[in-house]
Amino acid sequence: MLTTETVERWLAEDVGHRDVTNHVPGETTGRLVAKESVVVAGLDAAVAIFDYLGVETERAAENGESVEAGDVVLQVAGDARNVLRGERVAANVVGHASGIATTTREAVELARDASDSVRVAATRKTTPGLRGVEKRAVVAGGGDTHRLTLSGMVMVKDNHIEELGLEAAVHRFEARKSFATKLEVEVESPEMGERAAAAGADIVLFDNLSPERVREGVERLPDGVLSEASGGITLETLQSYAATGVDVVSMGWLTHSAPSADVSFRTGETREANGTSETNAPH
Amino acid sequence: MLTTETVERWLAEDVGHRDVTNHVPGETTGRLVAKESVVVAGLDAAVAIFDYLGVETERAAENGESVEAGDVVLQVAGDARNVLRGERVAANVVGHASGIATTTREAVELARDASDSVRVAATRKTTPGLRGVEKRAVVAGGGDTHRLTLSGMVMVKDNHIEELGLEAAVHRFEARKSFATKLEVEVESPEMGERAAAAGADIVLFDNLSPERVREGVERLPDGVLSEASGGITLETLQSYAATGVDVVSMGWLTHSAPSADVSFRTGETREANGTSETNAPH
Amino acid sequence: MLTTETVERWLAEDVGHRDVTNHVPGETTGRLVAKESVVVAGLDAAVAIFDYLGVETERAAENGESVEAGDVVLQVAGDARNVLRGERVAANVVGHASGIATTTREAVELARDASDSVRVAATRKTTPGLRGVEKRAVVAGGGDTHRLTLSGMVMVKDNHIEELGLEAAVHRFEARKSFATKLEVEVESPEMGERAAAAGADIVLFDNLSPERVREGVERLPDGVLSEASGGITLETLQSYAATGVDVVSMGWLTHSAPSADVSFRTGETREANGTSETNAPH
Amino acid sequence: MLTTETVERWLAEDVGHRDVTNHVPGETTGRLVAKESVVVAGLDAAVAIFDYLGVETERAAENGESVEAGDVVLQVAGDARNVLRGERVAANVVGHASGIATTTREAVELARDASDSVRVAATRKTTPGLRGVEKRAVVAGGGDTHRLTLSGMVMVKDNHIEELGLEAAVHRFEARKSFATKLEVEVESPEMGERAAAAGADIVLFDNLSPERVREGVERLPDGVLSEASGGITLETLQSYAATGVDVVSMGWLTHSAPSADVSFRTGETREANGTSETNAPH
Amino acid sequence: MLTTETVERWLAEDVGHRDVTNHVPGETTGRLVAKESVVVAGLDAAVAIFDYLGVETERAAENGESVEAGDVVLQVAGDARNVLRGERVAANVVGHASGIATTTREAVELARDASDSVRVAATRKTTPGLRGVEKRAVVAGGGDTHRLTLSGMVMVKDNHIEELGLEAAVHRFEARKSFATKLEVEVESPEMGERAAAAGADIVLFDNLSPERVREGVERLPDGVLSEASGGITLETLQSYAATGVDVVSMGWLTHSAPSADVSFRTGETREANGTSETNAPH
Amino acid sequence: MLTTETVERWLAEDVGHRDVTNHVPGETTGRLVAKESVVVAGLDAAVAIFDYLGVETERAAENGESVEAGDVVLQVAGDARNVLRGERVAANVVGHASGIATTTREAVELARDASDSVRVAATRKTTPGLRGVEKRAVVAGGGDTHRLTLSGMVMVKDNHIEELGLEAAVHRFEARKSFATKLEVEVESPEMGERAAAAGADIVLFDNLSPERVREGVERLPDGVLSEASGGITLETLQSYAATGVDVVSMGWLTHSAPSADVSFRTGETREANGTSETNAPH
Repeated sequence: MLTTETVERWLAEDVGHRDVTNHVPGETTGRLVAKESVVVAGLDAAVAIFDYLGVETERAAENGESVEAGDVVLQVAGDARNVLRGERVAANVVGHASGIATTTREAVELARDASDSVRVAATRKTTPGLRGVEKRAVVAGGGDTHRLTLSGMVMVKDNHIEELGLEAAVHRFEARKSFATKLEVEVESPEMGERAAAAGADIVLFDNLSPERVREGVERLPDGVLSEASGGITLETLQSYAATGVDVVSMGWLTHSAPSADVSFRTGETREANGTSETNAPH
Repeated sequence: MLTTETVERWLAEDVGHRDVTNHVPGETTGRLVAKESVVVAGLDAAVAIFDYLGVETERAAENGESVEAGDVVLQVAGDARNVLRGERVAANVVGHASGIATTTREAVELARDASDSVRVAATRKTTPGLRGVEKRAVVAGGGDTHRLTLSGMVMVKDNHIEELGLEAAVHRFEARKSFATKLEVEVESPEMGERAAAAGADIVLFDNLSPERVREGVERLPDGVLSEASGGITLETLQSYAATGVDVVSMGWLTHSAPSADVSFRTGETREANGTSETNAPH
Repeated sequence: MLTTETVERWLAEDVGHRDVTNHVPGETTGRLVAKESVVVAGLDAAVAIFDYLGVETERAAENGESVEAGDVVLQVAGDARNVLRGERVAANVVGHASGIATTTREAVELARDASDSVRVAATRKTTPGLRGVEKRAVVAGGGDTHRLTLSGMVMVKDNHIEELGLEAAVHRFEARKSFATKLEVEVESPEMGERAAAAGADIVLFDNLSPERVREGVERLPDGVLSEASGGITLETLQSYAATGVDVVSMGWLTHSAPSADVSFRTGETREANGTSETNAPH
Repeated sequence: MLTTETVERWLAEDVGHRDVTNHVPGETTGRLVAKESVVVAGLDAAVAIFDYLGVETERAAENGESVEAGDVVLQVAGDARNVLRGERVAANVVGHASGIATTTREAVELARDASDSVRVAATRKTTPGLRGVEKRAVVAGGGDTHRLTLSGMVMVKDNHIEELGLEAAVHRFEARKSFATKLEVEVESPEMGERAAAAGADIVLFDNLSPERVREGVERLPDGVLSEASGGITLETLQSYAATGVDVVSMGWLTHSAPSADVSFRTGETREANGTSETNAPH
Repeated sequence: MLTTETVERWLAEDVGHRDVTNHVPGETTGRLVAKESVVVAGLDAAVAIFDYLGVETERAAENGESVEAGDVVLQVAGDARNVLRGERVAANVVGHASGIATTTREAVELARDASDSVRVAATRKTTPGLRGVEKRAVVAGGGDTHRLTLSGMVMVKDNHIEELGLEAAVHRFEARKSFATKLEVEVESPEMGERAAAAGADIVLFDNLSPERVREGVERLPDGVLSEASGGITLETLQSYAATGVDVVSMGWLTHSAPSADVSFRTGETREANGTSETNAPH
Repeated sequence: MLTTETVERWLAEDVGHRDVTNHVPGETTGRLVAKESVVVAGLDAAVAIFDYLGVETERAAENGESVEAGDVVLQVAGDARNVLRGERVAANVVGHASGIATTTREAVELARDASDSVRVAATRKTTPGLRGVEKRAVVAGGGDTHRLTLSGMVMVKDNHIEELGLEAAVHRFEARKSFATKLEVEVESPEMGERAAAAGADIVLFDNLSPERVREGVERLPDGVLSEASGGITLETLQSYAATGVDVVSMGWLTHSAPSADVSFRTGETREANGTSETNAPH
């Protein structure tokens, strides 16, 4: 749900006080077009932008859908000035979100080759201001959001453990947290994982361990306790972690470094490819 | 200038209504540390975040400075709860901005090898909500912002030319624009570049042309008219464009797809590297 | 964390465009005083209000602390005009939050008489705009926040079950939710509770059942599945539900109908009680 | 008038970044239903919420109308997802406002039994962020808003009098205030009331006096000067104050402690009462 | 009270995403200087702007004070970059507000020559976004704010009278308004003024009548009912209205058309007048 | 583009928490009418206000059009309550903007008599919060916006020159600015103008010089360098500056001191002029 306030902020930062070139009369149509194979995300945001501008939209794809180069993902029609006002921002957010969804899909498929049940999750390493857009893009790509905010799941970190001891730290936060939230403990060894589970952890996070150590950690956990691996995992090392039997592999890369998907906006009637007007140069 | 409103929005999206684990008493220190070679950017935003939280900051690097793995870029000290509230968001924005600055620096250096005077510029393909942060990160990396908003420079695009003819389009916008702003014309051939300059363009943009055609276009331009090349240019093709004699090469990639720089936050007293507590796992 | 934006909104709605009477020169002191026995909450908000106005504050009590009539909970000192600008809003929010904390404490103590382990929880029936303040006030009173937002825990409701069937509904949302969140199922009978647990519910909510039926439901649940009772439970009926062995009793009343605690603001030097100036009549 | 900004804030605090369960396809209907006898208020806010979400509304009652248990007060129809997004917040605000209106109506009727002309008024003891909603709910219940902000009517308080003397304080503020606003003086005795009127007060507030003393104070006032009684007046003591001949009795209780009215939201087609789906459990 | 939100909005609209010239190192001082005789207003806003930027301020004049050409009204000292960021906006608001105060002072003095007791009042014809700043500037100039918002005083207008009849309209709004607010009736003749007073008006507004008719109207009013004249009154006609004995003359001109006072910002050390650096050209 | 957030802020500052008189049932029509000859501006803002309120609008004039006394510029129709809520704010903004456009038109015509090519430009001396509205009003009147923000064009001021020397200052900012922005140098003599042009200035601003000195300065500039005159230029002295051959004359007066255009709002059906209801007195 992209708020009016957000749409206005995004448009204002792009438009400025007086835009000369977009003062064009009449109506026009336009379409967001994928220029490479992508998993689509961010369409809700694009629709919210055009809705705000009074421009009609029709989705030609759904969030999470894979499309090919040349495929249209969103069609719009309305006042030319408002179409032109929205196109750059809409393309920017769909490109950004689809880039995340596409990278996530790739990661999920890699992981699936190594394990039928492993989940690929994002982290809180998101771009400031875009937490919701990016987490939902991860879902569009088949990934897991992980916790959405600091208030969403209690995580016992190494500094807590250092200060209080593992068991005491778990008990302290167990007592303070709501019954409605889970508790995860970040550990540095299989042994600590076992202790965390015994202390009451719902989930054990093996942080910065080798796949072998993660595997050992997972094996030592009792039934009903989930396991997660994290720490500098890339598309290159993902499968070795997925193969350990861990329940979740999480990667900051999905949200902070996925390259934008190549999506462009074209105005005017649909014509032959080489006659199409690709109005919105990126400058 | 990061506004209070922005800082509050960024923190709120990360914290939620009740964060259990950060309710720690006492004071602490912390530092943002580069984990790889990076060009630093986004420090103003990080400082604004900690200022807002009443946490003291001391810069250990400046925006635009190159630092090595292990180098501290920002030190903070204050109420532990507030340090912990700010660390993730601060690391996220510095990572994001420094990623852009680092990629820009790399591009600028590549281009410099091919031309002493060429500028590498960004575009309006920025992440929604981060126009200012990203444009300033490009500057930190040695790049050129290009226009900041639609109101900043008039660009005559192919759809304007199609509708009105090149000369008429230039004259129309020349008459409407302020004397304080420049006018750039996007062209598809060297010939059109010549006509655009004759019609009064301050800058001619060669869009989606081969390096050879760009070189031809540049050669045909009269003195005093700047030239720009754009359209899918990557780090791989950058030098071939820079070598054409063009004044500016612009790349959307700098802002929309630069991977985040690896920057992490460490709390507590400075200790030996392997004893350092890296509290802020990214989840 | 009360944002600057919130403080400004709260003050603006009380002050208007031109306030004649508060234009007093000089400095003054003041204190928030309990006029009856209360459990204190909302102090963070009061501090944020006075901080914003540049007025110094010193806490004389902590959130969650029980104080008696006449006890000071917060002392302030600063520019008289700013003290007077903040007092009504600060008293309003502390009275509101402390009323919730006091009622919650009462409920928790009642429930404790019937069960050593039962938790008393709030709901999403909070006053619009005050979700965080009220949930934290519940915590100050010893209660449990329950989920903080719709995104916090997945709840399978009767309409989902009606449409999809219980097992299918649970599986659908199980597949869609993050591993980091729990899943609760709302049921109308002990039998349904058993099925919900079998389908994978982390928590079973017995909604609008008699204490006897809740007891039966609780007994049928396997180990490791939490139970909750809800639906029109008041302070009068709370103990009968707490005595069923249920893990959680939740009550909308805590946040939507707890009467305000009687807290007033007094300006000027500390003097004998009957000589104190209670400046801020409530009009 | 509930602003878009307010609606967005209220919804955002309830929804969070990703709500799994409300992602239901199709259209639905719903209704806000009173579950006890209430005086309706807050419908404007509920309508604004659903309007924002693109959900159609039809009022089945008006603000200020008394309805019985089972009566529908608002009907809605639209996209199921948006109906579900809005229902909890809409029910919360209507419950809150109707609670105030219902309590106010009760107070007004009690007062009417003792006096034909007395007004029952609210104070500035409102819930932060809800000044307008609550003041308008008081009006819906037949009460008087009293001043809406500090800028609305000048009130000379005991600290002003202590510092300057009664007459000097009145003259000071009389000179500073606009001709468009009234001036009220807070007094501690009938004698002071007489002096205040002589000094030019439009209204005299008898604060924390017994009914007998208020009666004496009222009798001493000249024609054309209004009288008000205030200070810890409850539904129990209201009639004894109303019977004194005072023009206005004001009570903070109306806005800060009125229990919420029991109003719930039901989705789906209208059916027999026991077949109705009451989807929105309050958690 | 100028909010942080307002200061940020005002600065952002002036600064844009990247300001090159103000990136100057070091500290500087500056002063707001009157360049003609003015009545000062808007200093609170200027102070709020520099406070926000962390720049120290010292007032050299008070709101409402008359100063001569060359007089300093505000001194500032701090980070050069922040001084330069704030100067234009601060000068703009002080110039705007002081222009209103100066014009109001002139009007008040003219009116005083014709009547010892007449008040000169503003209207709701204020510049959008600046209601509070402008109304307080009117006060600084010795004028009366008139009502601050539509909610501040009830005004019965000609369309109400046309629809309901004068007496019925007055009674309708008398019944709906709070005891805390006054009621004014707009009339078109002395006779209607008499009827309005009889119906219960606190104030009678003679709209668009000649001074003679206003005088007649004023004479017909009973004691205790205030009179106001309005409708295209200018500095030229003000005295003829003031001489009628009317209590209030109101003029939209004060806020919507008063020319800005000439106030400029000078940076750097105080030096001889002709050596002073007047850095901030207005462009 | 007037944002929803701006419209809400403008309406809220005028309406307050409870407006009694505008609670009128039914539908009504209305029109904004010029009461003198004006150049229309600000219609976009008025339309945005009524759009927000759900009131239909039809433009009877365009921004930049000259209309005569009695001409309708905007017609509206809708819910009476919402028409009445919007009328004052809409009239205020159209009056303000049209006043600027009218004054600008007058200045442009005066200047045209002296020079065929001179441009009349505004400055950054705009009313805080209204930068966009005012700059666009200048355009409606035929003027030039000059730079829109500090980020829009680089201006080298006297304090830069004092500190660094003219040539060094120009080179410093030339190196820091984007290729997309121009650079203007403020000079105090014809000689400095020549040096500025030689150093690379795109535009030379002759500040506070006599027309004779400006003429000399203009003559010394090479082709391709624009010239601007500024500094206390009024309608009286405008022609003498325009006649110097300078390219641009800029005047702060256009935006900060243009008197409001006389525009009023009339409700109800169109009738004979003397029978028209002019409901919205300005108070």
